[in-house]
Amino acid sequence: MIAKRTAILIGKAIEKVMRDGKRQPVEEVSLLQSANRFLAEDIVATNPVPAFDRALYDGYAIRAEDTANEPVTLQVIGEIGAGSVFTGDVQPNQAVRIMTGAEMPVGCNAVVMLEDVIERDAQKIEVRQLVQCGARVFLKGAEIQQGACVVAKGTQITPGVIGILATFGYHRVPVFMKPVVGVLATGSELLDVDEPLAPGKIRNSNSYMLLAQVEQAGGEAVYLGKLEDDLEKSVEVMQHALTKVDVLITTGGVSVGDYDYLPAIYAQLGAEVLFNKLAMRPGSVTTVAVLGEQYLFGLSGNPSASFIGFELFVRPLIRQRLGSDIPHLLSVPAVLADDYSAPNQFTQLIRMKSTFCNGQLIASVNGLNMSGAITAIAGVEALAVLPPTTTGYKRGQTVDVLLLAAQKGQAHSYWGDENES
Amino acid sequence: MIAKRTAILIGKAIEKVMRDGKRQPVEEVSLLQSANRFLAEDIVATNPVPAFDRALYDGYAIRAEDTANEPVTLQVIGEIGAGSVFTGDVQPNQAVRIMTGAEMPVGCNAVVMLEDVIERDAQKIEVRQLVQCGARVFLKGAEIQQGACVVAKGTQITPGVIGILATFGYHRVPVFMKPVVGVLATGSELLDVDEPLAPGKIRNSNSYMLLAQVEQAGGEAVYLGKLEDDLEKSVEVMQHALTKVDVLITTGGVSVGDYDYLPAIYAQLGAEVLFNKLAMRPGSVTTVAVLGEQYLFGLSGNPSASFIGFELFVRPLIRQRLGSDIPHLLSVPAVLADDYSAPNQFTQLIRMKSTFCNGQLIASVNGLNMSGAITAIAGVEALAVLPPTTTGYKRGQTVDVLLLAAQKGQAHSYWGDENES
Repeated sequence: MIAKRTAILIGKAIEKVMRDGKRQPVEEVSLLQSANRFLAEDIVATNPVPAFDRALYDGYAIRAEDTANEPVTLQVIGEIGAGSVFTGDVQPNQAVRIMTGAEMPVGCNAVVMLEDVIERDAQKIEVRQLVQCGARVFLKGAEIQQGACVVAKGTQITPGVIGILATFGYHRVPVFMKPVVGVLATGSELLDVDEPLAPGKIRNSNSYMLLAQVEQAGGEAVYLGKLEDDLEKSVEVMQHALTKVDVLITTGGVSVGDYDYLPAIYAQLGAEVLFNKLAMRPGSVTTVAVLGEQYLFGLSGNPSASFIGFELFVRPLIRQRLGSDIPHLLSVPAVLADDYSAPNQFTQLIRMKSTFCNGQLIASVNGLNMSGAITAIAGVEALAVLPPTTTGYKRGQTVDVLLLAAQKGQAHSYWGDENES
Repeated sequence: MIAKRTAILIGKAIEKVMRDGKRQPVEEVSLLQSANRFLAEDIVATNPVPAFDRALYDGYAIRAEDTANEPVTLQVIGEIGAGSVFTGDVQPNQAVRIMTGAEMPVGCNAVVMLEDVIERDAQKIEVRQLVQCGARVFLKGAEIQQGACVVAKGTQITPGVIGILATFGYHRVPVFMKPVVGVLATGSELLDVDEPLAPGKIRNSNSYMLLAQVEQAGGEAVYLGKLEDDLEKSVEVMQHALTKVDVLITTGGVSVGDYDYLPAIYAQLGAEVLFNKLAMRPGSVTTVAVLGEQYLFGLSGNPSASFIGFELFVRPLIRQRLGSDIPHLLSVPAVLADDYSAPNQFTQLIRMKSTFCNGQLIASVNGLNMSGAITAIAGVEALAVLPPTTTGYKRGQTVDVLLLAAQKGQAHSYWGDENES
């Protein structure tokens, strides 16, 4: 069965995938389990920071006005460590020995450092300089006011965000539940990873690669095994899979060949095909279909094509569901280290290594530039975007690359605006 | 107790930490569990890739020499799907229908695409062009020869590496065991995350941040609670902790104040102090000690200082033990978006956001530039390195920044060569 396929532009395809706009349900996890998850609520300062006027240095808490006519001798009426509170009443010409981080005693408004006083005896210090009100004090609320939003909903939780969650007492953290993404391989040429090679066969590498990509994107990956070359059985397996997953990825079996039965499966499932051919290389025979709120991605069986198809289409969908407002790969300009002289009527995506040289990002091809190549995927750091060309691209030319595995992303896809005609 | 402290340069300090050079023991994990771990062996191609001459397109496998006098009519003697093997013998002027990915039949050496033949009937095709030997065939071993090293020991396992491991049948993967890194907080001002704020107190945020940094660096993080302000009890707690961890981080309690008892604890433990003061801001009172093969890091209680201390000293140690030959943060030049006009006799490390603008990396300060600030750590992406200055730094000036959370690193620390006098 050969389905009629009309190629659409990459940007249009991404738009169709993202139109849905659905968010995942919310769950609470413990603070330690929240790393790399996506916040389901704005994190609000539950107290001002600092929560009290805090000494920035070890020294003496004083009343700045006492130093107006320096030198002045102050009486030391107590001492206060971090975490303690001085309950006494500090009168004119009195001081309190204070440690970094401790709360300023009532009546004091500045700290003088140890090296700036002369300790006359245990109860007497001499200050020989004019001290400004507020000196070496981190004033209550100076960093953040109570009620201010400190981290926005949809932010991925980094170690720094964990520090903030702890500061504001979030021992339980509201996060978006991970979308469950199942991966099904197709193709009778596929062996399991632990099987010995046999004539005409290759091992199933795409499934494992895709499962790792799902986890990296923030999803929960479920390995669903292999579809058999049988229409009825395949429909059954996929129907069953769809009871367990939010997103179902198949890899392989969508080539325009005699054995392609995925269009028939989509039809029997009642899924609406958003597109089944793309104006891009590799990955032109990528299919995306929807069934209610569930997505079916039919990625190519070629390792590069399925890798790239995931990053362009599945990753942003997962991140959108996780509330991210920067779900797409970050694009930056880079200088080509190689020639790509062949004309091409489609946009090409090339697997690149990227290095900085004199402040410029340099993109060099990573291994064999063939969609069937597998070893080249190991070191890939970026995808160069080469728009249709009659003249090819030259070494030294600047093109845009999409950075993989960057924690940062961008709001719109690279093709979201004027980058595609 | 105030210990005598002599500040050493950052580069020298990193060198002292890294001198050890120890590697973790090796364990095997399943392929799916190996993501983000570090390879403990070179991964070698257990078969050539492709393992057989493979058709790159759907079409007909032919003998190229038959097309020398085109047009030619060829007899179709069979068909072959991916994963099947054609066992017949292909004679002159014969062809076999073939699918993408299938093994070429013996005797055939080229593929013609469907659109390039005229199908006369089910058994006859006409080829009207000269076909080159090897056309549209991915020759056995063309991508990689059997026995070649495809991924080096010490490489962090990305989705692409997982694809390669699957290709070569590694269903169990040798990885370096994660170093166990314990985190102990100190400071009587610290509350647990789930406690309500109290006068003079702050919540323990550094411990949770550091635990997340440990996991991000590749270690196994263990939360060990809080040290009490009691020398004997602290020694006991740390002795017990050292029976369980490879690396022990304390945060706080190392300020040059009356309450600093960590030097005495190190002495009682018999640990050798490598350094206890650094010529850097923030984090000047960072202490590192060794006890046999175990490391004790005494990081500052200031959130920024402990964050930075981890990234500069603990992260590379963890990655060195995991076999990485690029354990240090990657340094790249960036343009300052702000002025830093204050002179400083020490190297400053400033928390930055980084954005690309016209191909240049721009570093702008992230939140309050104070080591006591906590909210600014959430969005930090890079650390700007500002060497000692009498004139300050100006907006528009290019400086070097260390990229955080980049998968990539570098072999030597930023200060490893000529970057420090």
